[in-house]
Amino acid sequence: MRAVTFRSDPAQLCIAKKSFAFWPFRTISAGNSDVQQPGKASALTACHSFALKIQFQDETKMTEHSLWRFSRALHRAINERQLADIELMLDDEVEWAIYGPIDLFSFFGSRRGKAAVLEVIRQIGENLRVHRFDRESIMLGVDSAASMLRYSLTALDSNKPISLRIAHFARFKAGKLTSFRVLVDSFDLVEQTVGYPIHLPRIAV
Amino acid sequence: MRAVTFRSDPAQLCIAKKSFAFWPFRTISAGNSDVQQPGKASALTACHSFALKIQFQDETKMTEHSLWRFSRALHRAINERQLADIELMLDDEVEWAIYGPIDLFSFFGSRRGKAAVLEVIRQIGENLRVHRFDRESIMLGVDSAASMLRYSLTALDSNKPISLRIAHFARFKAGKLTSFRVLVDSFDLVEQTVGYPIHLPRIAV
Repeated sequence: MRAVTFRSDPAQLCIAKKSFAFWPFRTISAGNSDVQQPGKASALTACHSFALKIQFQDETKMTEHSLWRFSRALHRAINERQLADIELMLDDEVEWAIYGPIDLFSFFGSRRGKAAVLEVIRQIGENLRVHRFDRESIMLGVDSAASMLRYSLTALDSNKPISLRIAHFARFKAGKLTSFRVLVDSFDLVEQTVGYPIHLPRIAV
Repeated sequence: MRAVTFRSDPAQLCIAKKSFAFWPFRTISAGNSDVQQPGKASALTACHSFALKIQFQDETKMTEHSLWRFSRALHRAINERQLADIELMLDDEVEWAIYGPIDLFSFFGSRRGKAAVLEVIRQIGENLRVHRFDRESIMLGVDSAASMLRYSLTALDSNKPISLRIAHFARFKAGKLTSFRVLVDSFDLVEQTVGYPIHLPRIAV
């Protein structure tokens, strides 16, 4: 049995705020070092930096969480259309779902297996460009992670800016992604994408 | 400094699947014991039960996570309109946000402070009834939690059933909720609530 020790003071496991921006004329890899820096905490998500220490019997080592490698590889795949890094991080049987209106974006919905997930990431890269994301909430487990993020995107066909909040739950096994579920504030996305407000009756007063 | 130890074998912190149903002629409190039972794991969210063991110097005790108490109190407040339990669990300065179209439901949006949050929970109870929820993903930290859940609800004014996926991130301090952020699959909610499909142009091919 492995004992996994999280140290934090006070006992706050893993809420952090991180912001990353991709600058137009810099490659994403130039910004990679940001990923491991503790972000500036806002008043809303006051937090403490934390260290993840994994003890294997006598051996103690600090290790980078798979989420950071996955995040770098995913954004590189989307913005630079370089799929090599992300391919190495996908489990052969990876489960993938982005819950949202598949009528609007065909890359929404569920996929299973490395080939299908690589294809959907390629499609995302053909349609969107990531400019910036702010990690508003984050929780890290040993082989799992969940975040709420705010993204600034561009829809490539219309060159329209899109600001979007998403939540994801990820699981890893031996450093590879085995499960990724994403929920998006889909109505907000629809209005921004179609470019006009959708009239809604008021249900609750 | 406190050391907080999570034990899991294999090293899987906190993914679990839990399902709870509220039966029409039973009070919610009758179902409360469900909350601490490990749920049945589906193929999609294969998981291992886990124990949260918090060590304070010489003293070791097992403790119920604040999420379970909060979840019981919240559902009791919504379905039975009994606000006493949830009031005890709210920090005076609690931050609360449900991201979604406030044009549709006035209880979406941000609130701050115990009184404002109690009022918004009361409004939710006047508009919705919870029949069942399935916790598809969950992560627990010492004073934090995140879940993705699938809810079966009824809109009380129209008696319409609503099936809705949400993600939440919660933080606690001394057993009280200090921050709660909820993202909902808002487009799905809008279509179910207005009762007709909203036409969407296909953006991505």
